[in-house]
Amino acid sequence: MNIILQQELKKILNGRFSQSESTRLNYSRGEDTYDPILSKAVAFPETNEEVSKILKLCNEYKVPVVPFGTGTSLEGNVVGNDKGITISLEKMNKILSVNTQDFDCRVQACVTREQLNDYLREDGIFFPIDPGANAAIGGMASTSASGTMAVKYGTMKTVITGLTVVLPNGEIMNTGGRTKKTSAGYNLTNLFVGSEGTLGVITEVQLRLSPIPESIMSAVCHFPSLEDAVKTAQEVIQYGIQIARIEMLNKDQMEISINYSKLEDVKALPTLFFEFHGSEISNKESIKTVEELSKNNNGSSFKWAKSLEERNKLWKARWDVYYSVKALIDNGRVYSTDVCLPISKITECVKFAEEEVKKFGLRAPMVGHLGDGNFHVLLPYNPEKKETYEKIRKFSDLLIEKTLELQGTITGEHGVGLHKKEYLKKEHADNLPTMKLIKRTMDPNNIMNPGKIFDLN
Amino acid sequence: MNIILQQELKKILNGRFSQSESTRLNYSRGEDTYDPILSKAVAFPETNEEVSKILKLCNEYKVPVVPFGTGTSLEGNVVGNDKGITISLEKMNKILSVNTQDFDCRVQACVTREQLNDYLREDGIFFPIDPGANAAIGGMASTSASGTMAVKYGTMKTVITGLTVVLPNGEIMNTGGRTKKTSAGYNLTNLFVGSEGTLGVITEVQLRLSPIPESIMSAVCHFPSLEDAVKTAQEVIQYGIQIARIEMLNKDQMEISINYSKLEDVKALPTLFFEFHGSEISNKESIKTVEELSKNNNGSSFKWAKSLEERNKLWKARWDVYYSVKALIDNGRVYSTDVCLPISKITECVKFAEEEVKKFGLRAPMVGHLGDGNFHVLLPYNPEKKETYEKIRKFSDLLIEKTLELQGTITGEHGVGLHKKEYLKKEHADNLPTMKLIKRTMDPNNIMNPGKIFDLN
Repeated sequence: MNIILQQELKKILNGRFSQSESTRLNYSRGEDTYDPILSKAVAFPETNEEVSKILKLCNEYKVPVVPFGTGTSLEGNVVGNDKGITISLEKMNKILSVNTQDFDCRVQACVTREQLNDYLREDGIFFPIDPGANAAIGGMASTSASGTMAVKYGTMKTVITGLTVVLPNGEIMNTGGRTKKTSAGYNLTNLFVGSEGTLGVITEVQLRLSPIPESIMSAVCHFPSLEDAVKTAQEVIQYGIQIARIEMLNKDQMEISINYSKLEDVKALPTLFFEFHGSEISNKESIKTVEELSKNNNGSSFKWAKSLEERNKLWKARWDVYYSVKALIDNGRVYSTDVCLPISKITECVKFAEEEVKKFGLRAPMVGHLGDGNFHVLLPYNPEKKETYEKIRKFSDLLIEKTLELQGTITGEHGVGLHKKEYLKKEHADNLPTMKLIKRTMDPNNIMNPGKIFDLN
Repeated sequence: MNIILQQELKKILNGRFSQSESTRLNYSRGEDTYDPILSKAVAFPETNEEVSKILKLCNEYKVPVVPFGTGTSLEGNVVGNDKGITISLEKMNKILSVNTQDFDCRVQACVTREQLNDYLREDGIFFPIDPGANAAIGGMASTSASGTMAVKYGTMKTVITGLTVVLPNGEIMNTGGRTKKTSAGYNLTNLFVGSEGTLGVITEVQLRLSPIPESIMSAVCHFPSLEDAVKTAQEVIQYGIQIARIEMLNKDQMEISINYSKLEDVKALPTLFFEFHGSEISNKESIKTVEELSKNNNGSSFKWAKSLEERNKLWKARWDVYYSVKALIDNGRVYSTDVCLPISKITECVKFAEEEVKKFGLRAPMVGHLGDGNFHVLLPYNPEKKETYEKIRKFSDLLIEKTLELQGTITGEHGVGLHKKEYLKKEHADNLPTMKLIKRTMDPNNIMNPGKIFDLN
């Protein structure tokens, strides 16, 4: 790395610039399957202006930049760059404004989901996008994340109304605004949402919030087969029932979660977690219909999480799914698939996945945001066992093929990163020239997270 | 127009290519305030491939292209180009597929809102975006339209999951897909939604539909002052009440609508039209709260539109607002503002608008999608009276200034077209370089609807 650039960066950051190996290792990957790649240095800016100065310099010196939030991404989206620097946004963690009358707020990129919700709680509003991990909101924007509550509350794509983005040339741009809707020119906000740091650095996010519902009710229902559970979820959506979450855990995952999260009173059977948000009256009405549909599909009677504590324990277990699977193997990694399908196709696809993992002899617990048609097969493995990884990748290839055949998408919420670049070619071959055109124009020196989403050459 | 190009286009279109003055006049503008500009010819393609061939040729000859749907846009978005051709998509009006299990469909660009809903009715699903006019769905996509039901069902931005777009070089691209969510690369779908035909021609739209609710209930409530009405709408949203529409009509507009639409049993007073979609139980619950809020703000008792017929009459009157105002003046035109604000700011802005029109001595009925913070001041005028237009524009300038001061947007749903280019500079000066960069790269010969949204030079 050029010595003048180094000196300049140190000066700009007033010491918040580390070249130590341990720091570089800490920011070398996310929760993904990749070996760490150490960037040359890690920068810790505190303001838009600092990010702007960093990018301007890096652009001048044609030095790659990897933006980094909490490092909870799963697809290699934040793996380091051995010719570049990583920008950790962790010091940009301030809640800038909350407007309780309009249900909106503006946060710096590294405010996390839980931090924001702790802050908002006493105002009776909340940020409803819940990907499980306590991710940074800027990171969630950059992968177009969603999670368990998208059925009712949408995804990052629908709750973000504006962004502050620093462009590769150092320009600071404020897209969108505070209104619920706008038709004022190109939708640049949604061009950056999901662009995984390849077009600029997201430094601020303007978000729509939701009122905390009058009544929240959570229930667990077991099914004799995964197919019964999936069919129930499918019907709940097709009946247009008001529901906030429908999460599926297969038998294997239930077993793992019962052990890892010390769950009581639930069984190691294919299971749905339901959650209803609304008034007490409307929730009761929805629950009645969902109970009927479950019963028709051989579901057990509902076990209710009555207290807040019980409910939190239940969802904590759901959030810990990834870590529960990771813990199965010492120094293990988890390969997570992320296909998403039209609701009518999900039973066929889940069944296909179950049969294939059996054929491959893989351990593969499954969880799913069934309300959105999105499910994950979690495949733990020892990175030293290359042949397991190869089997996993073969399984994943088949699942992608099946998904595309069923008009699904290769990624519902994790993004492409390094991991799904080949799959993106299969889904959107005809879109890639335009994506690359935009990338080349907006980032002519290819400094922004190069090699993620697609390769330019 | 080059003679070889003409011959080639005629050949491609097998005669569906008109150079007659009357046809060119028919496609020379929308429902806007502009004088007609006649393109050199109008093409009527029937397939994606024909559109592709047209664009390829026009790109080669550097001839501008104006895509045209139903011509119901209000901002000059489809005004002709005297050096180019207009592509009317009216023959691309087929519903390509409907999936009742997944609540989605795919339509050609010139399927209209009403055509689609007539088709869907017996399946118990509907397309919920209602801008008033019986617009083409492709046109609604290109301006990022919304309308009366956005409170509950979102906007074109949120219900479109994929598009077929013909790029300026003739490439046919399919963006997005059928799934509820995806993180597969850049969100090209939402780059085209709202791009007003400046980046390519939208030829197919993939849409999310909604189940027709079990119960629909519509009511009218009068208020002694507009402020009371606006405050009520504001509170309904702030209480998070489930409601499908809250439409405001001011006193003047009520008078006009009562005459034009032969409305009975309603008064020429500031009025809210409410509509509730849900189960009977949940609607009753919502209505109770809304009635209380209205009463607290001096609202009258609710007048219910009990039958489907009564309800249709009510909404027909709402839809006819634009035409009712236009009919006030022989050969008149209507200047419509389209500002949209955070809910908490809307009372202040509506009040400001009322005071200013009085000062200017303008006739200015008002309607609003208050649930979204969006309202229109409709200013009828005789195009021969330049001084009235100048007054209107001065009023509009002040309203825009006030709106931006209150963190609103210059256009909630109509787009920029020719009309709001100066205003766009005020709202998004720092976004324009990136918008123009994208435009220049994707349409290097600037053939796609040039001069709309912004000027390149």
